[in-house]
Amino acid sequence: MNTSVAFQGEHGAYSEQAVFAHFGPTASTVPCRSIRDVFESVQEGRVQYGIVPAENSLEGTVNQTYDLLLSSPLKINGEIKQRIVHCLLAIPGTKLENLRMIYSHPQALAQCATFLRSLKAEAIPAYDTAGSAKMIQEKKISDAAAIASERAGELYGLIVLKKNIEDNPENYTRFFVIGHTDSPPTGSDKTSIVFGAAHTPGSLYKALEEFASRGINMTKLESRPVRTTPWEYDFFIDLDGHRTDSACQEAFEAVKNKTTFIKILGSYPRAK
Amino acid sequence: MNTSVAFQGEHGAYSEQAVFAHFGPTASTVPCRSIRDVFESVQEGRVQYGIVPAENSLEGTVNQTYDLLLSSPLKINGEIKQRIVHCLLAIPGTKLENLRMIYSHPQALAQCATFLRSLKAEAIPAYDTAGSAKMIQEKKISDAAAIASERAGELYGLIVLKKNIEDNPENYTRFFVIGHTDSPPTGSDKTSIVFGAAHTPGSLYKALEEFASRGINMTKLESRPVRTTPWEYDFFIDLDGHRTDSACQEAFEAVKNKTTFIKILGSYPRAK
Repeated sequence: MNTSVAFQGEHGAYSEQAVFAHFGPTASTVPCRSIRDVFESVQEGRVQYGIVPAENSLEGTVNQTYDLLLSSPLKINGEIKQRIVHCLLAIPGTKLENLRMIYSHPQALAQCATFLRSLKAEAIPAYDTAGSAKMIQEKKISDAAAIASERAGELYGLIVLKKNIEDNPENYTRFFVIGHTDSPPTGSDKTSIVFGAAHTPGSLYKALEEFASRGINMTKLESRPVRTTPWEYDFFIDLDGHRTDSACQEAFEAVKNKTTFIKILGSYPRAK
Repeated sequence: MNTSVAFQGEHGAYSEQAVFAHFGPTASTVPCRSIRDVFESVQEGRVQYGIVPAENSLEGTVNQTYDLLLSSPLKINGEIKQRIVHCLLAIPGTKLENLRMIYSHPQALAQCATFLRSLKAEAIPAYDTAGSAKMIQEKKISDAAAIASERAGELYGLIVLKKNIEDNPENYTRFFVIGHTDSPPTGSDKTSIVFGAAHTPGSLYKALEEFASRGINMTKLESRPVRTTPWEYDFFIDLDGHRTDSACQEAFEAVKNKTTFIKILGSYPRAK
């Protein structure tokens, strides 16, 4: 049986590309309306895995994914780094100079801001990149284009008016694979954790000390507001190493006594 | 002459409420299309100050503001904390059960997700909360509503169908006042800085050590991806104290030698 994997968006979404990159071209992909739906699909056993965006090299962290990781029993099982190439897609016969509206997800619109300013068209935010492409085809809108992946263009019978329209070519998205368990050690692993810093001076520093003093490298540190208490923060940290490494286990034990809580989100092989 | 202050959005935006809260009801408010436009209006001298959103207690950091602070010569001059109360607004005569579309900024839609699920209407993302209210009035759409402030309703002649529709009442936005200079010491100040951590194990920890060892409390720490180098991060930090305090000055000097760069974004009186 093919591996079943849920992703957010319509077929042709960048998230779906990440599924094929990680699980191979025979994976069975299941579109979901929201990131929350991806988590629920995995948790309720309708799919084996989910793929959720964690951060974009230009836009930063995807807040909703981190909020869901905090409350979900699911584990991070893998990471995928995917180059994002935006294309301007339209129904065949459409000309660049006749465009009046450009539909896409607000992040995609923002990433193509310089190119969009060169057009006379209005940028219109939508829920999804591939969904915008699908909508233009279904409604046969001849003076509009969508910003989405080349594959979305193929799937929905649209032509590529222009490729690589992003302002900055250093545009990568990092995705997490989520599942019921995390991954066994491979020798080149990362571990994601979250903890709540006590509201006392130096508390974050004292927690980080437990990693630094054991030579454990942090590859990412992100603060997120605690939803029940304004202006308090949880800290999401990515570390080099596997949670079963003795240095990691010692550090987690020590951090427990210096924080309000600690949760291990999962260990997984480092993406190339 | 009244103080002139630029803000993002249409008249009636939450940002405009923050202007009046900080500068008083006689401030002259200048609407801007984007956060970037607010920065430019101040820099080019068209207004004395700007107000930009820094973080929301539910959604987290406003990435664009931090990216602009990194590159702008302007300074943070003040902070404002504002409670956000969302209202469902419609043209007089509209009934809750007849609504087919709800327009608002994606963040406002997300913050009212539970309430929205109780309606049968479709949530439609727009650039602005107050702008959605204005649009409904201008186009006289009788089966739609906007999520915006009560004041936006008054300004555009809409009725409040329901107030306090946000999922979580702990919904505050923190705004920065930006200007050509920061503020003199008052005895109860904060300072915002940004630095680039060297890409070596423990480098962030070693930089933070300079604050912790001098008893300087960090109130916020946020990582942002470096736009030119994927998977490298700049760290934005808020500290207790004024940049002219001797402890702060010593710490900044020491941090300089442990980071790729440091920039002082400004010192300002702590908001109540």
